Order: sequence, then structure tokens, then C-alpha cells
Amino acid sequence: MVNSDIKNRKRIAVIGGSKATAEILKMAHECGRLIAESGAILVTGGLGGVMEAASCGAKEAGGMTIGILPGRDKERANKYIDFAILTGLGEIRNALVVMNADSIIAIDGSHGTLNEISYALISKKPLFAVKSWNIAQGEGECKRGELIHCETVQEAVEKAISVEA
Amino acid sequence: MVNSDIKNRKRIAVIGGSKATAEILKMAHECGRLIAESGAILVTGGLGGVMEAASCGAKEAGGMTIGILPGRDKERANKYIDFAILTGLGEIRNALVVMNADSIIAIDGSHGTLNEISYALISKKPLFAVKSWNIAQGEGECKRGELIHCETVQEAVEKAISVEA
Amino acid sequence: MVNSDIKNRKRIAVIGGSKATAEILKMAHECGRLIAESGAILVTGGLGGVMEAASCGAKEAGGMTIGILPGRDKERANKYIDFAILTGLGEIRNALVVMNADSIIAIDGSHGTLNEISYALISKKPLFAVKSWNIAQGEGECKRGELIHCETVQEAVEKAISVEA
Amino acid sequence: MVNSDIKNRKRIAVIGGSKATAEILKMAHECGRLIAESGAILVTGGLGGVMEAASCGAKEAGGMTIGILPGRDKERANKYIDFAILTGLGEIRNALVVMNADSIIAIDGSHGTLNEISYALISKKPLFAVKSWNIAQGEGECKRGELIHCETVQEAVEKAISVEA
Repeated sequence: MVNSDIKNRKRIAVIGGSKATAEILKMAHECGRLIAESGAILVTGGLGGVMEAASCGAKEAGGMTIGILPGRDKERANKYIDFAILTGLGEIRNALVVMNADSIIAIDGSHGTLNEISYALISKKPLFAVKSWNIAQGEGECKRGELIHCETVQEAVEKAISVEA
Repeated sequence: MVNSDIKNRKRIAVIGGSKATAEILKMAHECGRLIAESGAILVTGGLGGVMEAASCGAKEAGGMTIGILPGRDKERANKYIDFAILTGLGEIRNALVVMNADSIIAIDGSHGTLNEISYALISKKPLFAVKSWNIAQGEGECKRGELIHCETVQEAVEKAISVEA
Repeated sequence: MVNSDIKNRKRIAVIGGSKATAEILKMAHECGRLIAESGAILVTGGLGGVMEAASCGAKEAGGMTIGILPGRDKERANKYIDFAILTGLGEIRNALVVMNADSIIAIDGSHGTLNEISYALISKKPLFAVKSWNIAQGEGECKRGELIHCETVQEAVEKAISVEA
Repeated sequence: MVNSDIKNRKRIAVIGGSKATAEILKMAHECGRLIAESGAILVTGGLGGVMEAASCGAKEAGGMTIGILPGRDKERANKYIDFAILTGLGEIRNALVVMNADSIIAIDGSHGTLNEISYALISKKPLFAVKSWNIAQGEGECKRGELIHCETVQEAVEKAISVEA
């Protein structure tokens, strides 16, 4: 039913807002497609916007999608989610999205995305950002810290895939 | 890669101890096999004992397995888990095992299993027990309450499958 | 403002349903009073029924009460709670009620109380029950296991207080 | 034992790293003292560094302190915590620190502090920062967003206190 290697596939999370512009959604769709073509499993928060667009791209490319939901209702998952994982944890589920990925790609996004970025930084996971948050400690110039800024989603996926497990 | 109907499959959780006798493990293995043969996805806590035996049975029958782990290390999942979902929640993850199943089968088990039984009762999910806990409110006789006692795992799986979603 | 010894006080949780008969509520009130008179801090789930009656008894005796709530709204705490701790975890907060007590007294109660009883058993905390659940593993007679049955709340509080930290 | 008004007191969280320079610790201590003098209850993550210094300042001024800990061991709380609340949630407990405060003051801090900042932004709670993170969405200049930057802890506490509940 499923290839026996399924548990060894890389998992890449795409994080971003449940609302986004058409340009951002197009990027998210492309990002999901590239992840699926690489053979990795896509992990998202399972809802709309960037999460849905990336999942749609992944499914169109024949990929597999996991959505880790804040609530307890599987019907809330977007229609491109193969495996909806319910948590009942509200936005605390953001921690589980990051925990279940080998690397993370942030596209645009608001405070929830910043929350997921911070979990990725805490857990020292590879983190790539396209048009997403700038963050900097202290009073100095705004640097992008350990968050690796990428110009395109192609660049982000290439880097995310090449990370050693 | 995965049938498009994957998100519509029934999910059945098997709960039970990480340690068990050979007889219990054989029952758990049979239970996992029957669940897979029915086309349902098996959900467990992802560790050893009853969880591992059920997952082994499911994989031998060509099924699909989700393991919802207490920790943050995918390597702790037993080797029959296709999708290890990490939570970092410790035994609180028991709530998520139940939340992600349409019906639950308890086989034997200790206090962690009682914990999952109580979550199933709270959420009013169909709950079938084979050689597992007896529970009763108040001082009266020991009744099995909403927990439906079954003589065999065959009976439990048949009943779990026939539950309307 | 607060005695400097406050962090060394014993904490005793009273668990039970948010709905209960007048007889049970009277017992819970008495239980809260006795806990406060012993100098211990009362921990509950912070809502109504047994939780509220116990908290009322504790406050009338000049005690201190902590309520660990399922939601995010402090106003949902009953009016006898000094320290409402919000969790947003839903019934998963039951784990935290038990985690924050040195010993636990169950009075009556439904599935949520059974859930808290199971957490107490998992964590091997002293657990005393008055008119609450009977539980038994396996097919044998209904035994009360590690859950120590008490005839009265006086007996339960005396035993809960005398437990070594 | 405790003033009956205790449940109506404002709660202010101080967030910051478990490691910090002497200068930062001095600021945190001053911050805790000012919070206590205002009559508010101090909420922190209960561990060392900024959390401990703020709690020390609050206790020296006769205040009350709540520490919401990542683990399950009350002994891990710093010695200035009156009420150690155990969670077993790891760094996910950051969400509960923010949830249990009416307003939040960030001093310095690393990724865990950024995580708490993001929870404060998600929940739209008043958030004041002293020598802490700069954050900005998108590619534009680094702005401080809804995070209100303060030059001194005095300024931060004054603003935090004056927020309407």
C-alpha cells in the first residue's frame, strides 16, 4: 500500500499564514510541488492559505502530506491533506509542526509563522525563509540570524533537501 | 504514491501496555492484521509491547500505521511505524492517540491504557476492550460501563469497523 | 504578603465532577475545609461542582486555592480560586492538576475524574477515593488497586496529609 | 492568609534568558522589584537568569511570584518562586507563561524569549521590550511592530501597569 521506505523519507515543513496574496500562494504551491518531486513528505499546519497552497502543489506532484491541526475536527483540514493529525492544542500545535520536520521553509507569514520560526531556532533545525520575518537580537542592525534567507522557493527547497539528516 | 482516498479511511487505535505476555502480544498482532485487512489505518502510541505487535500485524497485512510518540526522537518508534508523529508531551500524548482514532480497541494494559480509556470515554468514542480494565463508578458492582467488553480481538475489530463514522 | 514558607506547603488536589449531588458537594466542601485547616494548599481544576465546593470550604477556613483551568479565560474560574492558572489544553489540563499535587483525593466524579485518577496512578502519587471509581485490571474481581478507598473525607484528608513528601 | 483581592491583581510576566550578563540581571531584578511595588503578581518561566533575578527583586519588595516550569520537578524552580506550576510540556510551557499574564515585559533573551514574544503577539497582549528582539515582517526596514520598545525597565513597568485589563 505504501512503500516500505516511507518512514525514512525526509520531512519538510512549509510554514506561513492562513491568509496570503496571490503571489505568495503561487510561491507556496511551487514549494509544495518541489518538495514532493524531491520525494520528501510535506508537513504543514493543515489549514488554509500557504498551508493549503503548498499541500495542493505537493498532491499535484504525487506527493504525500501531513497536516498537524490545532483543533479536534478532521474536517477542518484542507482537502489536500492525506494525514490530518488532530491535537486540540490550539496554536501550541505549532511546536509539533516543527518537531515533525527535518527542515523548515517559512514563506511570508504573520505571528503564528514567527512562533514556528522561534521553535525551529530553539530546536536548531535548518530553517529557510522566503519573504518572511527579519529578526535580530539586541539593538544592532537587523540581521537574519540563523534563519537563512532565500530569494526563491527553489533555492529554499534545494537547501532544505541537501541538509544531512 | 498513496491512494487519493487515504484521508477517508477509518482510523482504529489499539491501546495497550509496552510490556505484555506472549499471549497478549499474539492477540495484538492478530488485531493489527485484522484492522489492516479491513482497510483501516492503525493508530498506536508507537512504542513497544502491544503497540509494536499490533503494528507488526498491520504491516504484514499490507496496512498503514501511525505512531503518536511521547518524545521527540523518531528513532524511538517501533520499526513497524510508517508515520511517527512526535509530540514531546510525555504521557499526555495519550490524549492525541485517542483523538486521532474513530474507534479504540484496548488490549490488556496498565495505567497508561486506563488513561487512554478515560480519554475515549470523555470524547464518547466507541471503545472495545479485550482482557483490559474493568471500571465502575461508585460503590456498586463492577460494571463495564460504556467500555464494551469483547471476548476476542476478532469481535472487537468487527465492532470497531462497523461503527458509523 | 505571603508567608515565606509558602513554597514548602503541601499541595493536595481534590478531583471530582463539575456536577454532583448535594451530598457529594457537602463532602467536597468539608474536604476543602480540612485541607485548608491542615495548612495545605488546595489544587483543583478550577471549575464548578466538586471543584467549587472544595474551594469554597478551603477559603472559608482561610486557606489558599489554585485552579488549573482547561481554557484561556480567567473569568471561568469559580469565585473561590485565588490563583487561576490558564492552560488552553482542554481536558488535557487534568494531567497538570495531578502533576501539581503531592497527593490526590477523588470524590465521586465521572470520566474526567477517571482520567485524573489514571494520571495519579501513572505518576505513582498517593491517591485516596471517596465514593469514586472502582477499577480493576483484567477479568478478576473488582479491586480498588493502588487507589486507596476511604469511607469519609476526614479519613482521606488525614491520610493525604500524613504522606511523606 | 492571603488578601481576598488576590485574584484581581494584575499579573505581569517578565521573559528573558536563563543566561544573561550582570547588567541584564540587574535590570531584571529592578523590573521584578517595580512590579511587586505596583501590587502586581510576577509571572515567569521559573528558572534561572532573568527569571530568577526578576523573582528575587519581586520577593525583596514583598511581592508574590508564580513560576511556570517546563518540567515536572518543583525543585527546579528558582528559590524566589512562591508558586511553582509544573507542566511537563518542555518549552511549550512558554505559551502558558504568556497566557497567564495581563502584560509581558521582555528583557534581552534568546530564542525562547522570541518564542514567548510570538505568543504575546498572537494573543495580542501588551508587550514591552527592553534590549530584546527586533522583529520585522517582510523585506522592509526593521521595525519593532506591536512590540513596544522601552529604554528602561521603569518605562516598561509603568506602561505595563497602566494597561487596562
